[in-house]
Amino acid sequence: MTKPHLTPDPHFLSATAARAAMDSGRLDSETLLKACLTRISLRQPAVQAWEAVERQDSVQRAMALDKIARQSPLHGIPVGVKDLIETAALTTSYGSPIYRGHKPGKDAACVKALVANGAIVLGKTVTTEFAYFTPGPTTNPHGLDHTPGGSSSGSAAAVADGQVSIAIGTQTAGSVIRPAAFCGIVGYKGTSGWAPMDGIKPLSPTLDTLGFFARAVADLDLIRRAFGNKPIAGLAEAPSGPPPRIAFCRTAWWDRADEDTKRLFERVVVKLSKEGARIGQYDMPPEFEGLNDAQLAIMTKEAARGFVEERKFHAEKLSPQFRELLEKGDAIGIREETAAKALATKCRNLLSHAFRDFDLLLTPAAPGAAPKGLERTGDPVFNRAWTLLGNPCIALPAGKNADGLPLAVQLVGPSGEDAEMIRHAAWVEAALRD
Amino acid sequence: MTKPHLTPDPHFLSATAARAAMDSGRLDSETLLKACLTRISLRQPAVQAWEAVERQDSVQRAMALDKIARQSPLHGIPVGVKDLIETAALTTSYGSPIYRGHKPGKDAACVKALVANGAIVLGKTVTTEFAYFTPGPTTNPHGLDHTPGGSSSGSAAAVADGQVSIAIGTQTAGSVIRPAAFCGIVGYKGTSGWAPMDGIKPLSPTLDTLGFFARAVADLDLIRRAFGNKPIAGLAEAPSGPPPRIAFCRTAWWDRADEDTKRLFERVVVKLSKEGARIGQYDMPPEFEGLNDAQLAIMTKEAARGFVEERKFHAEKLSPQFRELLEKGDAIGIREETAAKALATKCRNLLSHAFRDFDLLLTPAAPGAAPKGLERTGDPVFNRAWTLLGNPCIALPAGKNADGLPLAVQLVGPSGEDAEMIRHAAWVEAALRD
Repeated sequence: MTKPHLTPDPHFLSATAARAAMDSGRLDSETLLKACLTRISLRQPAVQAWEAVERQDSVQRAMALDKIARQSPLHGIPVGVKDLIETAALTTSYGSPIYRGHKPGKDAACVKALVANGAIVLGKTVTTEFAYFTPGPTTNPHGLDHTPGGSSSGSAAAVADGQVSIAIGTQTAGSVIRPAAFCGIVGYKGTSGWAPMDGIKPLSPTLDTLGFFARAVADLDLIRRAFGNKPIAGLAEAPSGPPPRIAFCRTAWWDRADEDTKRLFERVVVKLSKEGARIGQYDMPPEFEGLNDAQLAIMTKEAARGFVEERKFHAEKLSPQFRELLEKGDAIGIREETAAKALATKCRNLLSHAFRDFDLLLTPAAPGAAPKGLERTGDPVFNRAWTLLGNPCIALPAGKNADGLPLAVQLVGPSGEDAEMIRHAAWVEAALRD
Repeated sequence: MTKPHLTPDPHFLSATAARAAMDSGRLDSETLLKACLTRISLRQPAVQAWEAVERQDSVQRAMALDKIARQSPLHGIPVGVKDLIETAALTTSYGSPIYRGHKPGKDAACVKALVANGAIVLGKTVTTEFAYFTPGPTTNPHGLDHTPGGSSSGSAAAVADGQVSIAIGTQTAGSVIRPAAFCGIVGYKGTSGWAPMDGIKPLSPTLDTLGFFARAVADLDLIRRAFGNKPIAGLAEAPSGPPPRIAFCRTAWWDRADEDTKRLFERVVVKLSKEGARIGQYDMPPEFEGLNDAQLAIMTKEAARGFVEERKFHAEKLSPQFRELLEKGDAIGIREETAAKALATKCRNLLSHAFRDFDLLLTPAAPGAAPKGLERTGDPVFNRAWTLLGNPCIALPAGKNADGLPLAVQLVGPSGEDAEMIRHAAWVEAALRD
């Protein structure tokens, strides 16, 4: 018996749309998995998003899931796992030759949560070396000679290119929001501490935060439900409730945004305003200007503290850039580190007060579209401060530049209010799409 | 030549008073050190505050420091180091037989900071097993059959008993504020992240926070200066500026406070009001009721995550109580842990907003005076929530009960505003003393 009305190109559906297609019998997980695998075979030579792909086991799991009732939020949805994150079946190299072939022997807590909620691990995606700046081979599917961003390079490129429905990333400076922006997909970094980090190689424990790539804001709800959060009502349908109160925030680093980006925000502000959002402005208090340096100090110091063994026994296998990071970390003193943390605490209080007057900050996700060249992953200047403050962030696609490369905006919400923020982000997503 | 006008009992002076006596030539560090060592010899059999005492080296360092100009904030001041904290010269057992005789080979970052600022490490003080509940032999100097509190038992008892000027503690639930209250001294737990935790055995990395015991609020300024903070103006003299705006907070656990404590707060509120403080009331929002359980869940889970090796190879040397903690941690799921962290984030925002209307919360430090018996260290019910929220806390002595055991109040300040909070706490200290 052939299946009627099969969904075309299911590998380009959002997870929410794939679920709906499965619920109505137009799609099953096996078909979705095989479509992803075909796409990977076709595109891996050009995009190089994957370290390893789990072909046989993933199809078998899809077939098994197709035989049982769909109850879990991610039932039958394929997911890519950044190779910084440990998996039982596949090797985990953390993007470093030191760990080539490394088998930690068990799944990271976040992988366990996804699998327990029906997701199918399709494979491991390319990460930069230890989630820092030295890139792997991944390219940007929108322009193969442009960076996909990093450190979650493979996860962003694979989701953008129709190779997997959703993928896991981590962000210490700008490793989720920036690649999502460069690849033209939705990126989500939750409130600091929103998800467990067990089984993820730390770069900077104070800053490292789990994130996800997806093709629709509604998918973030499915993902968050896998971590025990309640469903957000009415998200898959047309967004309900009053339009959000939005504050446009140029940040202290506005002069680092290129002309594409500056013009983009002019358009976006007009558009959102026309759709009914109340748009105000948030001028960062002067204290915030120190946050990027504070983030850098904490990240650098904590990296130097964490990579003792690698440096002692395998220094020759570390990239010069990573070695330099660790050396800089050695030179950072207690005063600088504690002052950086104290500044973050102060600014968290200031921002928390400011969020009484609006629901979302609207701010750049990156200085511009993905830069040309694969030797760098772009500048996290518009990400560092928010990661340090710990607020939830979402990157949303917002058109393309003259070269056909994606542009994006970033939304920042109040800490801990991820669900409400996602609801508002779905409103913005719909407003920008119309 | 004999020294004129020698200060009597220098080992009972606050660090601030000892410094003043040194500056005016009435005291030198060698004399102070030897007075402490004599007091330790006399009292160690009864109080048992010390794991190890550095007799020779500390006197030699004092003599050397007496020969050079006094510039550092803690120049020549003896300090006790909780045996959870690693030291180069002395062994570090973390309160566990597993680590008897353990020599980590270097000083923890906080020890380095103190020593670089002139402090003299006098020795290692008794900690409970891995800073959890199983006590060492230390007694309460105000009543030898009463607990000194824990986990920083030895540090609190030694400072209270005139054996050392200041001492380091750590707090994960109530391990600084509670023993300070039970021993009748000043206890300080800084804003979460205020000081580096390198070289301190983690119990729960999210919660573990450095703290100190001292005999005067002004000493906290000397200590904080050793960590790179600016001096707080005018603290050593009579407190200046307008009286603080204080909110009395019974907390959700007020029915756990005994009659001594309830009457104490009636007296204290009247007294502070009479001295000119503006006293209001802060009723915890209902969400806060879950914070103690949230703290417990995070601590328990993180302990189970951290003590893998000890459990695998030395389970028989763990106390039944600690083994039970780790087993409970295994049973805590991702949902519970992430929900606990989400609740903390929510309550941090609520409290941050509330602190716009007052400078300090006034709240119990413990349910009552130190309970009788040495097999338990007392109940951290009035400490768990603040540790999880990360706000700075100070325990202040406030008289004694009918049995001659110390009573105390706790002050809680806005996160990151430690310096301002210490200035206000000095006002409260003076007001309660008058």
